[in-house]
Order: sequence, then structure tokens, then C-alpha cells
Amino acid sequence: MARPITFLSDYGLADEFVGVVHGVIARLCPEARVIDLTHGVPRHGVLPGALALARALPYAPAGVHLAVVDPEVGARRRAIALRVAEEDRLLVGPDNGLLLPAAERFGGCVEAYEISHSSWRLEPVSATFHGRDLFAPVAARLAAGEPLAEAGEPMDPDHLVDLRRPKPTFEPDGSVVAHAVGVDAFGNVALDVGAEQIPRTGLRLGHRARIEIGGRSFEAHVVRAFADVAPGDVLLYEDAGRTLAVAVNTGDAAAELVLRPGDEVRIVPDPVDRRSGT
Amino acid sequence: MARPITFLSDYGLADEFVGVVHGVIARLCPEARVIDLTHGVPRHGVLPGALALARALPYAPAGVHLAVVDPEVGARRRAIALRVAEEDRLLVGPDNGLLLPAAERFGGCVEAYEISHSSWRLEPVSATFHGRDLFAPVAARLAAGEPLAEAGEPMDPDHLVDLRRPKPTFEPDGSVVAHAVGVDAFGNVALDVGAEQIPRTGLRLGHRARIEIGGRSFEAHVVRAFADVAPGDVLLYEDAGRTLAVAVNTGDAAAELVLRPGDEVRIVPDPVDRRSGT
Amino acid sequence: MARPITFLSDYGLADEFVGVVHGVIARLCPEARVIDLTHGVPRHGVLPGALALARALPYAPAGVHLAVVDPEVGARRRAIALRVAEEDRLLVGPDNGLLLPAAERFGGCVEAYEISHSSWRLEPVSATFHGRDLFAPVAARLAAGEPLAEAGEPMDPDHLVDLRRPKPTFEPDGSVVAHAVGVDAFGNVALDVGAEQIPRTGLRLGHRARIEIGGRSFEAHVVRAFADVAPGDVLLYEDAGRTLAVAVNTGDAAAELVLRPGDEVRIVPDPVDRRSGT
Repeated sequence: MARPITFLSDYGLADEFVGVVHGVIARLCPEARVIDLTHGVPRHGVLPGALALARALPYAPAGVHLAVVDPEVGARRRAIALRVAEEDRLLVGPDNGLLLPAAERFGGCVEAYEISHSSWRLEPVSATFHGRDLFAPVAARLAAGEPLAEAGEPMDPDHLVDLRRPKPTFEPDGSVVAHAVGVDAFGNVALDVGAEQIPRTGLRLGHRARIEIGGRSFEAHVVRAFADVAPGDVLLYEDAGRTLAVAVNTGDAAAELVLRPGDEVRIVPDPVDRRSGT
Repeated sequence: MARPITFLSDYGLADEFVGVVHGVIARLCPEARVIDLTHGVPRHGVLPGALALARALPYAPAGVHLAVVDPEVGARRRAIALRVAEEDRLLVGPDNGLLLPAAERFGGCVEAYEISHSSWRLEPVSATFHGRDLFAPVAARLAAGEPLAEAGEPMDPDHLVDLRRPKPTFEPDGSVVAHAVGVDAFGNVALDVGAEQIPRTGLRLGHRARIEIGGRSFEAHVVRAFADVAPGDVLLYEDAGRTLAVAVNTGDAAAELVLRPGDEVRIVPDPVDRRSGT
Repeated sequence: MARPITFLSDYGLADEFVGVVHGVIARLCPEARVIDLTHGVPRHGVLPGALALARALPYAPAGVHLAVVDPEVGARRRAIALRVAEEDRLLVGPDNGLLLPAAERFGGCVEAYEISHSSWRLEPVSATFHGRDLFAPVAARLAAGEPLAEAGEPMDPDHLVDLRRPKPTFEPDGSVVAHAVGVDAFGNVALDVGAEQIPRTGLRLGHRARIEIGGRSFEAHVVRAFADVAPGDVLLYEDAGRTLAVAVNTGDAAAELVLRPGDEVRIVPDPVDRRSGT
């Protein structure tokens, strides 16, 4: 039986790119179920794509995980297929850091192959659509059970390109300097502070905090859910991806606070021990 | 064999929410076919979501029907799983009225379960993503054939939250005061007048009518299809959902007539018995 | 075993139209895999839809190919089901030219049926949603293995409606007068010059060319891939659909050059034999 394939990209759904990749997979491995994780990654957004993939994969069945956000297609970046340490998962995509945060969720990469010249690719390989000509055929053959070692040339996993990402800074007074790492369809903004790191901040449920972005400052409520604050209020909460996030109830935080992926966000817990008003 | 699952939401396709729900279902019930009805319901649009679900389900195979438009997630609203009277259909979603118009299409709800504390849910349940942690696992288990009675605690179907909806008023002179209930991707606006109610109005095919919205007034042609009027003309017609609708041929009626779901629309048939000019 | 179905339309994903078509197919032929090629064809864009279908089908498995871009639905246009000469592919859709460029990729249409009154259609057939009431049931029955000859009445393939399309003009000095035929999600603009026709122009890799649109003029680099030019530069390249295309590296050529499907584009190769600067 074929293994399931997940597929994430920045192709969007306005044209036939995603459909063509599905077509290529269906020709080579008709029995494989293909689950679209999302194709709405911001164009060329390797970091947001990597984070979306890392958030989604723990909920997807183990299988072949195809991801294509590939600003350097046609240039000299490598194409890769990886095996991770835990569960039986294979990742396929460009070697630009897109796959590694997801691989880290499963113990990291333990086996890597450079597949740019894979014998499985569709000839002629176009300069701009490796999703169709290279990544889809490799994913389909792996889903059909062909061995990873035949996908390409082995390479040292330590030589894979990693994303350079800033880290959050936790200050003695309970403040944290974090970074926006993703914006969802509702304008809610995920920060690079994981649920397990929130205790290192001075944030406490039911209290307030000040959010500073550039020279601007906003008051926020630290709460569990949107329904805990009034419409229009800014909230800090642990989102469904288990990271600290900023939102505006019934509003669009990314737009209203002018906050984009990569931006620095300073969060200062309210020093006065008064309960949030809502 | 697993039963098919349909899935409707206001998640949009810009991020990985829909894909994650598919992933959860595929892990728990790999054989179930999942049909996306739409994920483009306006954010928090319980009424338009309910109407879209009611329009779509008669065309979908009987199975498990998952729907999530859930502005009160994380607050005290119930989560429910229902059985309807006709065909073997189960509905899963929040208890905010979203599921009931669809249930009415199949004889109404005959069995209801409160599933907020279902033993099938994924722990820990997040405060904001019950689609993933609660509704998807319940839908998947039901599709796999587990009994509805094990999904949660039984409750009285009469206690389900219903949508408060205005009703159209039919006046002796053939006028009708209706309400916009949905806008499709082309800007065509469905009203709350079903095909079977059109004879109660004075509208006749090939004649004209006056449409009044707020203080504004438009002349419309009562026709069968777009092709019956000139480009730019306003038309009243029975749409594919079998309701009276307003459109602008090759245009966007919602934008041009400034008409949104919930708005009141007065329609006055032309008293003079002259045929429409087109 | 059921045959796969591909599905392309201009329905968009904002409402339940696409989901309803999937539902109808799943009821009539539950085993058929349905591959969405795209539903983002510009509304009523028969030519861009036809070209997207023709680009995608060679990558899709042979089966039943459903396509609906149907501005004349409800008027007198025919509905058709076709068999092509090569591979075992059947095409279903409106008779407005949408299917023919794809059919040409497989040796053209060899058998045609007028299906407007097909005994397989869902009654009552709405005036506006033939995708649901007519095309989907015909596609599903064909996928289930019912014979094409039972889909409707035979008609002469020579009487099918073809798209009137301008042709590119190749001039003795190496210039070409081409036409924009498609814009992808990134704003890259495909022209009506196929890869096999590029040698008839004076364009050479690594050289420059002047692009004239209306009274405006742009300098472009003739290259293999985006990575060959600097951000913001205009490039001419063979795209993944194997046609000559115009793009702006990291930009949106359709917006920046104000270029829409149907527009005439004159391309004049640089007469001076100097290599492109990048």
C-alpha cells in the first residue's frame, strides 16, 4: 500500500501549479493519498513555510512530506530528500532550511540525499518548476515504496542549509524581546516564544502587559482565549500551535499593530499586580 | 468501509488549519474520503456558513458532516454531534445554530450529543483550535464506524441553539420585504425567499421589478438566466440554490448595489403590464 | 476500477460550488479520485481556462477531464463530451472552445457528443449551475465506466466552437508581435509563442531585448531562470509551460508592465551584439 503524501507550497491556488503536482503524483503512485497542508505560504517565505510545516506535521500521518518554497529554483541550491530520527517520515524539498524545523520535531535529520540529478526526475527539467519535474516524482516514488537511497546521492546531514533565525531574549524583569514568525488568515501573529518558555517571562494569565513594536506601544490582556476579552482588545495567548501569540479580538492584529514576520516585539508585563479588567 | 466526511469552515486556505484537520482525520480514519465543501465562509459568519451547508449537503453523499464556524471557541458554547431523521447522516460542530438549517433539510435533528468532553478528543485541547483537537477526531471516529452514543453525553435536541433569523414579509400588492442571506464569489446575492415562495410575490418572468435597499432604488429584470439581460443590467432570478437572488450581469451586485448579508431588500413588482425590454 | 477525474473551473473557492460538484461526483462514483487542477481561472475567462487546461493535462493521469468556464450557461451554447485521438482521455464541458486546446495536445477530438439533454443529468437542471446538474453527473458516469455514446447525441467534431485567437507575427528583423495569454499567481505573463517558435525570433540567451506594450517600452534580459537577473529586472524566459514569458524578478510583471491577457506585446531583440549585463 502506498504511503500518504503531504504537500505544502507557496504556489497559491490561482493557477494550475498545485493541480499539476497532484497530476504527476497520481500518474506515478495512483494509490497515494495526498493531503494539502497549505499552498498559501507567502511567496518565497521560506521561514513562514518552515514554521507552518513544523506546526502541521505532528498532526499528519507519517509518510512522505513534500514542501516547496523555493526562491532560488534554477540557481545552484541543492534539492534534497531526508529521513528523520523518529517515526518513519521522509521529507522532500529544496535545501534552503524549509525542511529542518519540521525535521527537528522528529529528532532531526539522520539521512540526507541530494536529488537534483535524481534518475526519477521528469526530463526535460524546467528551470522554474521543480515542484513538477523533480520534487513530485521523487515524493511519488518514495510513497510507492522505492528506497530513499535510490533517490539521489548521499550527503552529510550536517551540510544542509539551516535558517538563520534570531532567538528571543528573556530579561531579568520578566520582559521578553521576541519576534513575529507567522501571521494566520485572521491576522493573528505568532511569536518565537514556545509554550514551554512562557514561564521564563513575567506574563501571568488574567494580568496585563505592554507590547512595544518599533516606537509604538499597546496594552494587551494575557488570557486563555479570545472570548476572555472585549471586541477590539489586544490579547496575548498561547495559540493552537503552542506558541505565544498576539491577536485583536474580532480584529486583525497584523494590520492594526502593523506587525510583520521578522519584526521585533518587546513585551513588558504589567508591574502593578492588578487583574485584567475583563 | 469508512463513511465519507464533508468539511466546511471559515478557516480560509491561507494557512495550515484546513490541512491539519485533514491530517488528524487521516491518522484516525485513513480510509475516509474527505470532501471540502468550502473554507471560504466569511470569518465568524455562522448564518452564511449554515446556509451554505444546507445548500450543499443534499448533493453530498450521506456520511459525517463536519462544519466549523466558531466565534465562541474557548468560551462556554457547547460542541455537538447530531443524527438527522432522514438518510444516515451525522453532523459535527459547535452548538451555535450552524448545523440546524442543514439538519432541517433531512427531517431535523433526532439525536444530539454534547461532545465538549468527548473521550475521543486530542489532549491537551487548545482554547482556539477545536477543529483540530475536538471536532476532527470525533468526525473521524464516527466515519470509522464508532457509535454516535459514545461521542459524548446525550442532550435534548430541543435545547440546541438556533439561529434567530428574520422572515420575509409578503404584502397584498405583490411586494416582498426579504433579506440578503448570502453572497457568492461573483457578488450574486441570495435572498431568504425560496423558489416555492416566489408565487406568493407579484414577480413574473419577463417583467420588471423595483428593488429598494435603504433609500436607494434599482430597476431589475425578472428572468431565468444571466443571458436574458444585457451586460450591466440588474436581474432577479431563481439561483442554483433554489432561492430568489439578485445579480448584475457580468457585474458584482453585492458591490454595485451595496448589499450585504442581513440587509433588508424590498422588491416591488412593476404594476404596469409591460414586458421587460430585453 | 473507476477512472480518475480532473476538474478545472472559474468557480473560485469562496463558496460551496466546487464542493457541491465533488459531492455529486462522490455520490455517483465514490471510487473515482478527483484532482482539482485549479478553480482560480479568471471569471468567464474561457481563453485562459483553455490554456491552463492544455498546460496541465499532459501531466495528469488519463481519465475524465471536467472543465467549466461557462459565461453562456443558461443560453443556447451546447454542452459536450469528447474523446481525443491519443491516450484514453474524455473531456466534458461547455462547447465554447474551452476544451479544444487541451484536445489538440492529444491529437484532437475524434468523437463528440452533445450532452445538454443527457439522460444522466440531475433534474431539474438549474439555469445557472450546469457544473452540478449536468457536467458533474456526466463526468462521474464516464469515470464509472459507462460508455461515451450513452452520454448524449453524437455530433460532428468539426462543428465544435473554436476560440478565435490571434497568432503571433514573426518579422524578418527577428522581432515578434505576440500576445499575453495568461498571468500566473506571481504576475508572470505567458505569451503565445511556444518554445519551438523561439528560434524564429532573434532572441538569444544572455542577450537583451526591448519589450513594447502600447506606447511604453521596457528593457529585458533573455535568460534561463529568475536567478540569472537582479531583483527588479525584467526577464524573457521559457516558462514551465514551455512558452515564452515575461517576468520581473521578485516582482509582478503583469502589474508593473500593466499587461493583461489579450494585450499585444512587441519584442525587439537588441541589434548590438553585447552580452546581457547580469
